Amino acid sequence: MSQIVSAAMLVIGDEILSGRTKDVNVNHIATELTAVGIRLLEVRVVADDENAIVDAVNSLRQQVDYVFSSGGIGPTHDDITADCMAKAFGWDIEVNEEARALLLAGYGGDPSSLTESRLRMARIPVGASLITNALSWAPGFVCENVHVMAGVPSIFKAMVAEVLPTLRKGAVMQSVTVRVDRGESVIAAPLAEIQARFPQVGIGSYPFSENGKFGSNLVARGDDAAVLAQVEAELKSLVPEEPDK
Amino acid sequence: MSQIVSAAMLVIGDEILSGRTKDVNVNHIATELTAVGIRLLEVRVVADDENAIVDAVNSLRQQVDYVFSSGGIGPTHDDITADCMAKAFGWDIEVNEEARALLLAGYGGDPSSLTESRLRMARIPVGASLITNALSWAPGFVCENVHVMAGVPSIFKAMVAEVLPTLRKGAVMQSVTVRVDRGESVIAAPLAEIQARFPQVGIGSYPFSENGKFGSNLVARGDDAAVLAQVEAELKSLVPEEPDK
Repeated sequence: MSQIVSAAMLVIGDEILSGRTKDVNVNHIATELTAVGIRLLEVRVVADDENAIVDAVNSLRQQVDYVFSSGGIGPTHDDITADCMAKAFGWDIEVNEEARALLLAGYGGDPSSLTESRLRMARIPVGASLITNALSWAPGFVCENVHVMAGVPSIFKAMVAEVLPTLRKGAVMQSVTVRVDRGESVIAAPLAEIQARFPQVGIGSYPFSENGKFGSNLVARGDDAAVLAQVEAELKSLVPEEPDK
Repeated sequence: MSQIVSAAMLVIGDEILSGRTKDVNVNHIATELTAVGIRLLEVRVVADDENAIVDAVNSLRQQVDYVFSSGGIGPTHDDITADCMAKAFGWDIEVNEEARALLLAGYGGDPSSLTESRLRMARIPVGASLITNALSWAPGFVCENVHVMAGVPSIFKAMVAEVLPTLRKGAVMQSVTVRVDRGESVIAAPLAEIQARFPQVGIGSYPFSENGKFGSNLVARGDDAAVLAQVEAELKSLVPEEPDK
């Protein structure tokens, strides 16, 4: 398929790695990208550490069409993402006039309201374009194929909504899901056989445990609805007439 | 600090990257590791793709003391983690007799119950030791510093509980959290000043938005309780007497 558009997500945040906070941005962008045919190939979560961020950005941006980051663009001392992006690209960083104007308008137009801390949110790598949003006066920004966004979920979502229309889209994968309430080991052989007969469809088995019983969601993905319907019928043949003992 | 013990987590799963499933294993292991003084430095989520898995394992296992993986050790055709681990380490893979015995006992002792699919769960890289657990007869395994575990959350948890006592522990970081219901840009300057006076304590500001209002959780981490108490008192001085307008 020549139509593959690929992406990676970089979550910047000590708080995720310490377990203090549960990330919700990955699932949001994964869902949004899948819906427009962009394939999320990798997610990395790194600490608020310059070397870790710079290395991850430089690794990911060469591997995929689009990189999205979340976190570290606020006004406090531990918000180092903008500086890290500048370093990763070898770009200068300074107060961006467009970003300053956005902040000034947001804080009511009084220049004295633009404290040093607030101006920190207008420091943007030189060469980046801004990602504005309706919820926050502090913009995200785009360095080539890297989209730098906020970590606060509501703002992240608003920024993703701004960015999505600007992206190249790929072929949207359609999928069907068949839930089978029996252990994977019982269905593995016929499932492999179905997969072998439909190599153009990707079939995944996603096991779960519910009330002490094992089951699996069988998901088939492809771009031909007619073939998917055939596969769906085959997968349904694996559903037990009555629950296994 | 010579006491740092580091870790990375590798989530293997198309279903996380497509947005179909929300990962919960990362938060679980992050919390467990933090509690015993092991620092989770990075998380990667990769697809059920051999090259992606092998590359990630070989990159992470050289960077940290312990790697933990989740997913892809079941009996279906898309469970390729064991083969990928063998490839990453350059080890052979075959049916492990101890794992076969566990499965045989689990399935009631009848050798004919050990179908090819079920035996697939006993294929373990040669040189690995097993991670057993009470919930599933299919074991995880350990290749040097890489701990390979199931993706189903209840089984992942059970395996983590088995593994934790075997790990070298680091100095447990203590932390205090102070919630401040005002925008980060208002507290950024005094917060940076507190951080500068207590360089031995790491202070993070984790902003949130609640009912349309911004606030932040200020978290200080360190290994000296007395110093942390001082920092906590200073952070509390940033809490407004009454909410900002």
